[in-house]
Order: sequence, then C-alpha cells, then structure tokens
Amino acid sequence: MADSFPLPVLGGDAPLYDQLYRHIAGAIRSGALSPGARLPSKRRMCALAGVSMSTVETAYSLLAAEGYVLSRPRSGYVCADLLPPAPAVPAHPPETAPAPAPKWAYDCSTSAVDVSVFPFSSWARITKEAVYENPGLLQRGHPQGDGPLRAALAQLLSQYRGVRCSPDQVVVGAGADHLLSLLLQLLPEQRAVALEDPGYPAAYAAAALHGREALPIPVDGEGMVPEALDASGAGLAYVTPSHQFPLGVSMPAGRRSRLLHWAASAQNRWLIEDDYDSEFRWSSRPIPALQGMDRAGRVVYLGTFSRSIAPAIRAAYLILPPGLLERYRHTFSHGACAVSRFEQESLRRFLVQGLYGRHLRRTGNLYRKKCALFAGALADIPGAEISGAEAGLHFLLTLPRYTEEELVERAAARSVRVHPLSRYCHAAPPRPSTVVLGFAGLTMEELAQAAALLRKAWE
Amino acid sequence: MADSFPLPVLGGDAPLYDQLYRHIAGAIRSGALSPGARLPSKRRMCALAGVSMSTVETAYSLLAAEGYVLSRPRSGYVCADLLPPAPAVPAHPPETAPAPAPKWAYDCSTSAVDVSVFPFSSWARITKEAVYENPGLLQRGHPQGDGPLRAALAQLLSQYRGVRCSPDQVVVGAGADHLLSLLLQLLPEQRAVALEDPGYPAAYAAAALHGREALPIPVDGEGMVPEALDASGAGLAYVTPSHQFPLGVSMPAGRRSRLLHWAASAQNRWLIEDDYDSEFRWSSRPIPALQGMDRAGRVVYLGTFSRSIAPAIRAAYLILPPGLLERYRHTFSHGACAVSRFEQESLRRFLVQGLYGRHLRRTGNLYRKKCALFAGALADIPGAEISGAEAGLHFLLTLPRYTEEELVERAAARSVRVHPLSRYCHAAPPRPSTVVLGFAGLTMEELAQAAALLRKAWE
Repeated sequence: MADSFPLPVLGGDAPLYDQLYRHIAGAIRSGALSPGARLPSKRRMCALAGVSMSTVETAYSLLAAEGYVLSRPRSGYVCADLLPPAPAVPAHPPETAPAPAPKWAYDCSTSAVDVSVFPFSSWARITKEAVYENPGLLQRGHPQGDGPLRAALAQLLSQYRGVRCSPDQVVVGAGADHLLSLLLQLLPEQRAVALEDPGYPAAYAAAALHGREALPIPVDGEGMVPEALDASGAGLAYVTPSHQFPLGVSMPAGRRSRLLHWAASAQNRWLIEDDYDSEFRWSSRPIPALQGMDRAGRVVYLGTFSRSIAPAIRAAYLILPPGLLERYRHTFSHGACAVSRFEQESLRRFLVQGLYGRHLRRTGNLYRKKCALFAGALADIPGAEISGAEAGLHFLLTLPRYTEEELVERAAARSVRVHPLSRYCHAAPPRPSTVVLGFAGLTMEELAQAAALLRKAWE
Repeated sequence: MADSFPLPVLGGDAPLYDQLYRHIAGAIRSGALSPGARLPSKRRMCALAGVSMSTVETAYSLLAAEGYVLSRPRSGYVCADLLPPAPAVPAHPPETAPAPAPKWAYDCSTSAVDVSVFPFSSWARITKEAVYENPGLLQRGHPQGDGPLRAALAQLLSQYRGVRCSPDQVVVGAGADHLLSLLLQLLPEQRAVALEDPGYPAAYAAAALHGREALPIPVDGEGMVPEALDASGAGLAYVTPSHQFPLGVSMPAGRRSRLLHWAASAQNRWLIEDDYDSEFRWSSRPIPALQGMDRAGRVVYLGTFSRSIAPAIRAAYLILPPGLLERYRHTFSHGACAVSRFEQESLRRFLVQGLYGRHLRRTGNLYRKKCALFAGALADIPGAEISGAEAGLHFLLTLPRYTEEELVERAAARSVRVHPLSRYCHAAPPRPSTVVLGFAGLTMEELAQAAALLRKAWE
C-alpha cells in the first residue's frame, strides 16, 4: 500500500516539512489517499521524498495533530475518514452565461441619477483627507454611526426638512434596505406592515424577508388613504409623503395630520416616513417632513443620499423617535455601524463644507430642466395625461388609447424602456393604462430623442 | 380673530410669498394659530405684511393646496385641524449624560487591532484613485458586489484558505452582522440555529433578532461537539473552526470532516463557517477552510477584514454554495449591495496590488511577538494555565485559585480590563475560573506593563 503513495515533488520557498504536510493533507482531502490507507513509514518517506527524518517527523506530527491521520500501534499512520459520503457537486456552479441584457437606446428607469455634475475632485480630496487626518477612524466606532456625522445630519435635516431631533436619535446605516431591515428587527411585535399600493417594491420585499404580512393600502391623490389604514389593523405604516412612489403625489399637510392622528391614537403605532426625493420639488416649496409635525413621537424618519448624491453613497439614516431609542440600543448592543468610518467622515465633510448644498442646487437646476423638457415634449401626445411631475425624478403618463402592455411594447419596439404602473400594484383596483418615466439618468439630448421616439410610438 | 394674527416679519433672500407661506404654515403647525381660526382677509394681509396682493394670493393658494387652511364660502380661509390630540413629548430625549466610561489603563478587549502599521498613505492614494478613475462607480452596482472585487476575493481565498469558488458565489456585505442577517433572511425555514457554547455573542444576537431559536452546542478541545449537534435537531450550525471564539481551539481536520458528514447526511442542512482569525496562526500551518473540504455544497463561508485590516473596513463577504445561489438572487432581487462602490474598488486595489499580503505579514509578525510576550509573561503565575494561544488575537488564562469574578475584579483594581469567560457561556457546564485576554490593541510596552500588573493582581 505504501508503495502506491503519490510521490511528493518538493521545491519552492516554503519549509520542506510544510510542503510535505500540505502534499499529504491535500492527497487525503482529494481522496487520492483513501481512508484507512497507510502512510509510508517515516524512514521510507525520507527516502521517497529525499528529506531528513526531522522533516518527516514534523510533517507527520502536524498531520496527526490536525486529524488527517491516526497513529495506530504497529501499523504506523493511517489516513482518517474525512470525506462525507454525499455525492460531490461541482465546486463551481454550471457556467450559465447570463442572458444578454437587452440593449435599450434609452432607459427611463427610476433609479438612475445624473452624475455628470458630481464633484469628483472635491470628493477625491475629501476622502483622502478623511483617511490622512483621522487615524483613529480605523478602530471600531459608535454603533449608531460616528457622533460628528450624526450631528451634521441632525443640523442638515433641521435646516432643509424641518426635522426636529438631536444627534442621539440618528442611526446611520448602509442604504434604505438595510435600515428597513433594522427597523423590522426592532419591532418584532408588528406582525403586519401597511404599505402604499401602488408602492415601493423594496418595502414589500423587506416585509416578506422578515416574515411580516404586507397590507396593501390604497393611495389616492393625497397619498395613503387613512380610512383604509384605520381598517387594516396594522400598527406600522410605511409612507413616502414627499413624492409618493410611484404615483408622484405630494402629501398635503391635512393628510399628514390625519396620518399623525392615526399613529397617536393608540399605543405602539409607528409611521415610517421615507423622505426620498424630498430634495427635488419643481412647482412649490417643499412641505416640511411629517417628522417635524409629529408631537406624539411616532414617526421614524428615513433618508438616503442615493438620489441626492449618487447610488454609490450607501450611507443612509434613520431618525428614531425618543420612545424607541432605549429599545434600539438594547436590541443592537452587539452591532457595529454598517458604514465604513472613512465614508462617514467623507460624507460629513461633504455636508459641512457646503459641497452638498451646492451639489443639490446644481442637480436641482438640471433635473428641473430635464423634467420640463421631457414632460413638455410628451404632454401634447393626443389623449396623454401627465401626473406626478411637480417633484422628484420621475412622472407618470396615462394614455388610455392603448393598453398598458401596448404602451410598454410600442416603446420597446423603438428601443425605449419604460415600466408599467401595474408593476407596482398589489390589491389596488386597475388604473387606466399608465407608464412610469424616469428622466434623471438621460442627458437633455437623450431626453429629446427619447421623447420623439415615444411620440411616434404612442401617437 | 384676524387681529390676533401673529404678525409676519418678512426679510431675507427668499421670495416674499414663500416667507409669508412659511410663517403661516409654521404658526399653524406650532399651534399658535388654532384649528378653525380665520386668516386675515387677503386685502388685510397685504396691509399687515406690507406686501402686494399677488404675494398674498400665492401664499394663500399654497397653504390651501397643502391642506394647512380650508377655503370656506363667506368666511375666507380657516386653519385646518392638523395636530394630533395626543400629549406632546419632548422632541429631544431628556439629556441623559452618558455614564462616564471607566478609565482603564489597559484594556484587554478582544475586538481591538493594532493600526500602527496601517499603510495610511497607500490607502489614501488608493481611495483617491478609486474615485478619480471610476466615474461609473457612482451608479448602482451589482447587488452581490462588483465583479472585479468578487473575482479578487475568490482568488485570494483560493490562494490563502483553500476555498473553492467562482466569483459568482461571492456576496459582499457590510460586516459579519449584516451578512448573518442576510443569511437568516435567506433561510427562513431554519427555525433554530446551532451555536457554539461558549460562543460569539453577535451570533446569538442575530438568531434572536430574526426570531430563531438559539441552540447552544457544547465545545470541546476540538470545537463544536458533533454528537450534541446531531441531537439538537438543528438544520443550520454556525462554527468558528480557525480559532473558536472564545476558547481559541483550532478545529482539527477529523472534526471538520465529522461536521461535513453531519451537513451532508440530510436535506437542507447548512454549516456557516466564520473563518475569523484564520489569518493569524502562530504554531503551525493554517488548516484550509472547511469550505474547501466540502464535497456536498453545504458550507457557507463568512469572512471579514475587521481584524486583518481594521474594524473600519466594513466590507465583508459570504461564499454561498452553488445550491443557494439561485435562491439568493431571487430572494434579494430588490436589494443593492450595502457597501459603497468606492470602498469596494479601494479594497480591490488593496488586495490585487499586494498591499494586503504585505500588511498581513507585518501585522502577523507583530501579533506573534505580542502573543509570545504577553502569554509568556503570564504563564509562570503559579497555577495559571494558558490555552488557545496557538492562533488569533486573544487567549484564555485559567487560574482556579480565585473565582472568575475575583480574577476580573483583582485585575480591575489595578486598572486592567479583562473579560470573564462565563460572559460567553449559555447552557455550558461551569468551567474553572477563566478570563479572556485580547492583546492586539496594546503596544509591546503596554503588554509588558499590563502583564506585570496582572501578575501582582493574581499572585
């Protein structure tokens, strides 16, 4: 048996005992040496491998210490039974070539942003300074996010959004998905979540991932319908008041007040205010956040920089009401903040050095022009109605002459990708044929060209 | 009523209609204007505020559009009932001064690392280049993490840890906590999780946060005890084979094989291999990862850079077995990768430019010396026994002369912080008085001084 031993070829920089050890361990793991097979005697191995006795002894000791071989009286070393009896599966999944992505000439997706005005050189300078000037940031930071960033966020939200909070209430996380996940972990007694219908798919996905029932609540021209929320029995509701996704409705103050009433009128009711797109409002002043109107401490405010800076900036934040703070700290006492401290510090500098405000003004002007151009070019398609274009980075177009499917397919035939509204609908009654049109990721020229194609497709 | 109207003071850069609108909206939100109160007539408001009729009309229209006021025939505009009746709570939580952190002269925590040799200038250069050279990174990336980073990780793990995987199997996430959370979301049918006892507190916390039962499985001198795992009925087990936390045991190949047998011998059984501290091994060669021995595709490999680079680097990764890939993609089809693409690209450069390997060699040499110094200085305390010092950044010291509590308190009396082993124990039978000693965060001088103090405390 010992003579069938696969001969080691030793060489290279590593110590010889280590090479010998690796060679034999590899043969046992791969099955080249079967369970129960005897290793050559130490003396024979010296001859086989052309190494000294101490080299062989060290290698064999390591193999025995780690359980690759067993030392048996009078038999020397025999290989252990390491391999599970289960059938082997390929370590690599079958190489399924990904389906070739359809080539769209123009993609009116709602998640793209315009990065042409992103201040690369400022961001590069800031990230470099954040590393150089803060060696302490390499160590573990505050689990809610670093204090200076939380202070800057509290200040920013107070100034821009009328949010009332102290830095203590801020929790920094890695994107809206991650923060929604934390919130659902924080509120395990909330077995059902009221969600806007039509609504944000990732909120539905988060509820499902955490084993909660998603309760679709209809949306009217002012946002989530309070009577339906009342009737749902939910204790937790997720809303997008600044620019309802996907309808584009801005929730007026009266409806906001009505939702706050709902939250305040029973124990353990919470509103999640996802303030996405609040930075971009074209036709009137922004309405301050629901959070700032909340006297009962029932609003959890959620914000990101995915659209106001770029999807690449993952740092996002919650503002917890005071009544959830203790619970948060207790629940996540083992956790670390999910955002790199260098990225936190870079973002803080971007905010407090005024670069964020400047970037918002530049992108706001750009998006305002894009929205006007694209909506204007589509508005005079006979029978077309545009809605939700007062704010945010997408709007809706309704054109009952075609079915929704026809609208999408006729656009696709001209290589323009648009999404059907029904994609975001759950229990809501059918609406007239409507598509969702994002414009932020296309240039002004591209928008003009896409609009010309869509007019041909839909006229 | 109109005469009790709080007089607006207008000035500043914003348009006058906007200032007037904000003033009135603020008064309604704050309660200074009660529900039902009449606004001054438009004409009277012109006089009160000293502005034109068109300014007042614009402001009143905005207020009406947003639901702050209602237009009543013959009464003009009256304030809406916005405020929930619930008692107001302070917007800021009571300013509880945080309890002053105890001042330890020496903190033997297990989570600190030595950042004195961190290559700041290389990292700063890399992060700057990552921003400058990759404007495309601002857009949304692959939900599992960017392809080039996943390829670099697969290559690294194959080379250093014997992991067998394709880049397709890699999932990049924001730290071990985040990835454990994703895994539990991925495996909702696993209602119980087998965990090492004593074991890693964050794994117990993750199970609780996702509503799973934590099943403590005893650990012996080779790691998790397979018979107890068999008997537990769990289908999911979390293990730390390279350096069991906190006992410091390295799992020999025989035990690894036994756990792989367990996983392969029934449908839907999975092993999570948390390969923490695998980079640091002092007395023999690293044993390749469990994942590389797994023929049945039942191991999920988990790795981070928290200790091998620094806690600040949040990017961490899972290697999913092929059998979970489709399910992962389906389950998280709405998600975005939680790690900034700039950080992903910086890390990739750190890996492929050889900086990571160099950093590991430098820190490895440093930690090896620290371990030898600290363990050596404590080993000759009469009756003391040191274990788990063959690998990793902490070891255990057992000294039955004192109770565990006395060991901790006598150290604290000399301003040295050590943790009791029982802190990490659940159902495990009591062990002799043992403390956990981390050494990575202290300098060589500090370790010598801390050891001298501990000798006095415990002799």
